Amino acid sequence: MTPRPLADQYRAYIDCLNRQDWPNLGLHVDDDVEHNGRPLGLAGYRAMLVKDFADIPDLHFRIDTLVCEPPHVAARLVFDCHPRAAFLGLPVNGRRISFAENVFYQFGGSKIVSVRSVIDKAAVERQIAA
Amino acid sequence: MTPRPLADQYRAYIDCLNRQDWPNLGLHVDDDVEHNGRPLGLAGYRAMLVKDFADIPDLHFRIDTLVCEPPHVAARLVFDCHPRAAFLGLPVNGRRISFAENVFYQFGGSKIVSVRSVIDKAAVERQIAA
Repeated sequence: MTPRPLADQYRAYIDCLNRQDWPNLGLHVDDDVEHNGRPLGLAGYRAMLVKDFADIPDLHFRIDTLVCEPPHVAARLVFDCHPRAAFLGLPVNGRRISFAENVFYQFGGSKIVSVRSVIDKAAVERQIAA
Repeated sequence: MTPRPLADQYRAYIDCLNRQDWPNLGLHVDDDVEHNGRPLGLAGYRAMLVKDFADIPDLHFRIDTLVCEPPHVAARLVFDCHPRAAFLGLPVNGRRISFAENVFYQFGGSKIVSVRSVIDKAAVERQIAA
């Protein structure tokens, strides 16, 4: 059986996030996933995402650029949203902000095992200073 | 003639930066390159890099992760260096810092035409607060 192309697997993961379909997150994310060097595991990873949506009710993941070379996926994600209060330690307080996240994933089989993410904090700083 | 694989082209670009071989930068970077939406052109791009090395004398580009899918390259670059004074607006002042840059490149033929970079400013903030 041919495995699904990595790009399709990744898009299914992003759809899962945007549906907030937490019972199915484990189809896309490994039990032992780590995020920026932290061994969160699936439960910790899910808790991080649940908190993100609580802090940012209109959070939506949009793929700007997708680069796939097994076992890696690199994505530039773009966001346009209204965090309720602080975001990245910055007093956003309900203002609309747009920013990018450049993120690398390593897959083990069909699941994400490692994430290395950088969010464009400087862009958010510029917007709340404006 | 088979073009060089994109990974080899990218590694040659990084070697050019680390040698500060500015006369040959135009072999790797397009005349009309743009960086994070700014139309710098080759001369402006070179000026940005020259200033980076002036501000950070021990600057060295090291590839941690490389993901290639023509016409895109995504790289996670890691740095371990001593910026002389301010860096990203933060008072580093000669301290040693380590940080990552997650960056996407679009190639046109053998040359970089577009760069979308995010530097991990939060990591630098944590280090100078320590």
